[in-house]
Amino acid sequence: MEAYEELIRRVREASLLGSCAAVLGWDQRTYMPAKGALHRAQQIALLAGMVHEQTTAPAIGELLGEVEGSESVREGDSAMAVNVREIRRRYDRECKLPRALVTELARTCTLARDVWVQARRESDFALFRPWLEKIVALKRQEAEAVGYAGVPYDALLDDYEPGETAGHLATLFAALRDGLVPRVAAIQATGRRPDIAILQREYPVDRQEAFGRAAAAMIGFDFTAGRLDETTHPFCSGIGPGDTRLTTRYDPRDFGDAFFSILHEAGHGIYDQGLDPTLYGTPMGSAVSLAIHESQSRLWENFVGRSRAFWDHVFPLARRTFPEGLADVTLDAFYFAINDCRPSFIRVDADEVTYNLHVLLRFELEQALISGDLPAADVPAAWNEAVQRYFDLTPPDNSRGCLQDTHWSGGAIGYFPTYTLGNLYAAQFFGQAREDLGDLEAQFRRGEFAPLKEWLRTKIHRHGQRYRAADLVAAVTGKPLSPRSFVDYLRSKYGPLYGI
Amino acid sequence: MEAYEELIRRVREASLLGSCAAVLGWDQRTYMPAKGALHRAQQIALLAGMVHEQTTAPAIGELLGEVEGSESVREGDSAMAVNVREIRRRYDRECKLPRALVTELARTCTLARDVWVQARRESDFALFRPWLEKIVALKRQEAEAVGYAGVPYDALLDDYEPGETAGHLATLFAALRDGLVPRVAAIQATGRRPDIAILQREYPVDRQEAFGRAAAAMIGFDFTAGRLDETTHPFCSGIGPGDTRLTTRYDPRDFGDAFFSILHEAGHGIYDQGLDPTLYGTPMGSAVSLAIHESQSRLWENFVGRSRAFWDHVFPLARRTFPEGLADVTLDAFYFAINDCRPSFIRVDADEVTYNLHVLLRFELEQALISGDLPAADVPAAWNEAVQRYFDLTPPDNSRGCLQDTHWSGGAIGYFPTYTLGNLYAAQFFGQAREDLGDLEAQFRRGEFAPLKEWLRTKIHRHGQRYRAADLVAAVTGKPLSPRSFVDYLRSKYGPLYGI
Repeated sequence: MEAYEELIRRVREASLLGSCAAVLGWDQRTYMPAKGALHRAQQIALLAGMVHEQTTAPAIGELLGEVEGSESVREGDSAMAVNVREIRRRYDRECKLPRALVTELARTCTLARDVWVQARRESDFALFRPWLEKIVALKRQEAEAVGYAGVPYDALLDDYEPGETAGHLATLFAALRDGLVPRVAAIQATGRRPDIAILQREYPVDRQEAFGRAAAAMIGFDFTAGRLDETTHPFCSGIGPGDTRLTTRYDPRDFGDAFFSILHEAGHGIYDQGLDPTLYGTPMGSAVSLAIHESQSRLWENFVGRSRAFWDHVFPLARRTFPEGLADVTLDAFYFAINDCRPSFIRVDADEVTYNLHVLLRFELEQALISGDLPAADVPAAWNEAVQRYFDLTPPDNSRGCLQDTHWSGGAIGYFPTYTLGNLYAAQFFGQAREDLGDLEAQFRRGEFAPLKEWLRTKIHRHGQRYRAADLVAAVTGKPLSPRSFVDYLRSKYGPLYGI
Repeated sequence: MEAYEELIRRVREASLLGSCAAVLGWDQRTYMPAKGALHRAQQIALLAGMVHEQTTAPAIGELLGEVEGSESVREGDSAMAVNVREIRRRYDRECKLPRALVTELARTCTLARDVWVQARRESDFALFRPWLEKIVALKRQEAEAVGYAGVPYDALLDDYEPGETAGHLATLFAALRDGLVPRVAAIQATGRRPDIAILQREYPVDRQEAFGRAAAAMIGFDFTAGRLDETTHPFCSGIGPGDTRLTTRYDPRDFGDAFFSILHEAGHGIYDQGLDPTLYGTPMGSAVSLAIHESQSRLWENFVGRSRAFWDHVFPLARRTFPEGLADVTLDAFYFAINDCRPSFIRVDADEVTYNLHVLLRFELEQALISGDLPAADVPAAWNEAVQRYFDLTPPDNSRGCLQDTHWSGGAIGYFPTYTLGNLYAAQFFGQAREDLGDLEAQFRRGEFAPLKEWLRTKIHRHGQRYRAADLVAAVTGKPLSPRSFVDYLRSKYGPLYGI
C-alpha cells in the first residue's frame, strides 16, 4: 500500500507539472504577445523535459514492480488495478523516448505553431515546409523509439488512442466510407440547397460571444470553473479541477463558425468538468482517449446542437439576439441552413456527412508522411489531388488546403482519426442515451439538458480510464463499435431534410 | 570557464522555470476562473519548490566554490564577477530556507490572495485575519531561517532590497518626514483646492483603455512584446524577453485611477523591456532591486506623467477622447486636479506629497507585525490609529483601511519601503537626466520621450545588477541617496500650484 501511495503521489506531481505547461500553452494561443514566442518555446520545452523525467524516473519503474505483484492490482477493473495498468502503459512508452527527443519535439512544435499561424494567414506553404519536414522526421524517430507491431504510424496513433491500429481503422473507415459516399451522392442528386446566405449576414461579435456563452452554460458548462476566449484554432484546455477553458474565433459575417465551435469545445469542457476532481492526476481521474473526448464534443455540437429540438427551444432567443440576421428567417430555413450538406474545403466547417471524408483524407496523407512515401514538400500537391478525389473540388489556395489545420504544426500526427472515431462513438452513446432517458427531443424542446449531461457523467466521465475506449462503448451500449449507429443517424436526419 | 558556464546554465534554467510560475501568477490575477484557485495554488507551490531546489542544488555551491577562486571573478564589476557575486548571495539565502517553508509560503500566499480579494470586496477583516496570522508566522520563520544582524525585519527587507536595513531606513525616512510634514501642512493651510470632480465624470472604460494604451506606447512601452489587461490590484509582470505584461483596473467614473496606474506599470515594463535579453536569467540581465524598479515606474508616472509639459502635449487628445468629461475643462484646471494634494485613505490614489506617508505608516506596522509587538488581530485598530496620527482621518471601513493593499496577502512584508525608496531614487535620477539631456520639458511638450527612455536604458537598464542600488545612484548621479532631490522637486512643483 505504501508503494502504491508513493506511486500515485509521483504520478500526480507529474500531472500537476504538466498542467503548468497547459496554462502556458493556453496563454500562447490566446494572449501571449508576438515577441514572447521564443521564450515561451523554451519554457514549454523545459517543462516537457521535466515531466518526461518525472514520468520515467527509475523509482516509478521500481514502485510499479512492487505493486504489480499485489493481489488487489490483479483484480481486473478496481481503481487500483486501472491506475497501475495505465501508469505502466505510459511509463513503458515514455521510457522509450530519449529526453533530447522530447524536448526537441516540444521546442520545435512550439515554434512551428507560430510559423504555421503566419503561413496559414499568408497561404505560404514554403514558409511552413521546413518545419513540417522537421516535425515528420522527429515523429518518425518517436515511432521508431516507441516501437510497433504493424506500421510506424501505429506507434503514434497509440499515443492518442490506446490499442487502436492503422489496420483496424482502415477496415472501420472503409465500411464508413461505403455508407457515406452514396449518401453524399444522393443528397447532391436532389439538387436541393438551403439558403446558407442567411448565416452570412451581420452577426456582431460581441453578441455572438454572449449568445455562445449562454448556450454553453445552458447545456451544462460551468463558467465559474471555466472561461471562453478567442484564438486562431478553437480548442479546449482542461487545466485542472475547477479550471477548464474553451476558445473560439469569431467572424462577424458568419453565425455558425463560432457558435458550433463553442458548443463543440463546451462538450469537451463538460467531459473535463465531469472527471472526478479527487482523482485528479491519476488515470482514474483522466479522460479515456481522444476519441472518447471527441465523442463528447461532437455529441453536444451535432447530435444536440444541430438538432431540430434544440433549435425549437433556442431559435426565439437567437432571433431576438440577431435581428439583423434572423428577423425574416423561419425556423425551417434556419434548421436546413445549419445542416447544409455539401462537399467543401474546410474540415471544421464541414457538415456531419462530409466531415468524415476530410478526416479520411488526412488519415491517408499522414500515413504516407510517416511511412516516408510522401515527402513534406509534396503535401500541397497530394492534398489537392485527394480533395479532387474525395470531393471533386480544387482548393483555391493552401490556406484552404493543407495549411488549414494546426495539428501537424503541433506534432499531432495520428490525431485526426480520433475525430471520426469520436463521431462513431458519439452516435452509439447518443442512441443508448435515448433508450435510457426516453424522449430526449422533448427534453431539448423544453430546454432540459441536465438529464443527458448527468447520464454522460455517470456512464462515461466518472469512470476515468477504467475502460479503454473499445471496452467502454461495449460496457455502455452492449455492442462493439461499428459505423452503423452513425450511418443510421445520418439517414434519419438527412432523409427528411433532403426529401430522400 | 567550464564551471562558470555550467553555473550560468543552471541559474538560467532556474530563472526559466521561475518564469513559468510568473505566467501562472499573471493568469491567476487576470483570467483564472474562480474555482481554479486551489489547483493553481498547488501548481505554484510545486514550481516554487522546484525553483528552490534548483537554486539550492549542492552543485551550485560546488560550482560557486570553483569559480570564486579564479582571477576574473575577483575583478570588481566585470560581468562575470557580478554574476558570481549575486548568484552567491541568492544561493546563501535560499540554502537557509527549508523547502517545506518555501512551498508552504507559496501555497498559503496563493490561496490567501483569493481570500484577500473577497475580504477587500466585502470589507471583512475577520475573513482575512487567519491568513494574515499564518503569513506573518511563516515570514517570521523565514526571517529566523535567513538570519539578520539587526532585527528580523532586516532579513525580509534584504530580499527585496539587498543591503538595505530597517535602521538605515528609519534615519532616511525620518529626514524625509521632516521635509514632508510641514509641506503638507503648508499646502493644507492655503485652503486652495482643485476641482477634482472633473476627473470623476463619465470616462467610458473602452476609451480609457485605448487612451492608456496609446500613452504607454507613446512613452516607449513596446506592445508587440507586451500586453495590457485588467486585474484587481495593478501590477507589471516581466515574464521574459519579449513578454512583459501590464495590468490595471478601470472605474468609468474615475479618469486617474487607471491612467496613472498604466503609466506606472508601463514604467516598470520599460525597465523590463530594457534589460539585455541575451543575458536573460542571469544577474547581469536582471533588475537591480525593487526600489530601482519602482524608481522607473514612479519616474514615468509622476515626474513625466503628472508634469505640465506632458499634458501640454497630451491634453488636446484627452479632450477629444473624453468630451463628456473634459470639453469644458482648461488645461490649468486639469493639471491642478491631477496634482491635488490632500490627506486620503488609499495609497495608490495618493498624491506625490502624501504618498510616502502611506508607506511610512505601513513600514511602521509591518515592523511591529514581524517583531511580534502587533498581533494580526489588532491590525485594523493599529491601522486606524496610525491613519489618525499621520493624516488626521478615520478610515470608513477596512476596505479603505488595512485591506486595501494586496502585498501582505502575497507574503510581501518588507516590500512597502521600496516604494518610498523608489521615489527618492527617481527624483535623483530625473534630476541627473535633466542635467544630461537639456530641456526635458521642451522635449515632452513636443511628445519626445525617446531621449529619456534611452538615457534610462543606457544608464540603468543595461547594467542589470552590475551595481547594487546605493552604488548605482552614486555611479549615475555622483551623489549618495538622500531625500533632498525629492523634497526639492516637490517644492518646485507644488509651490507654484498652491501659490506658496
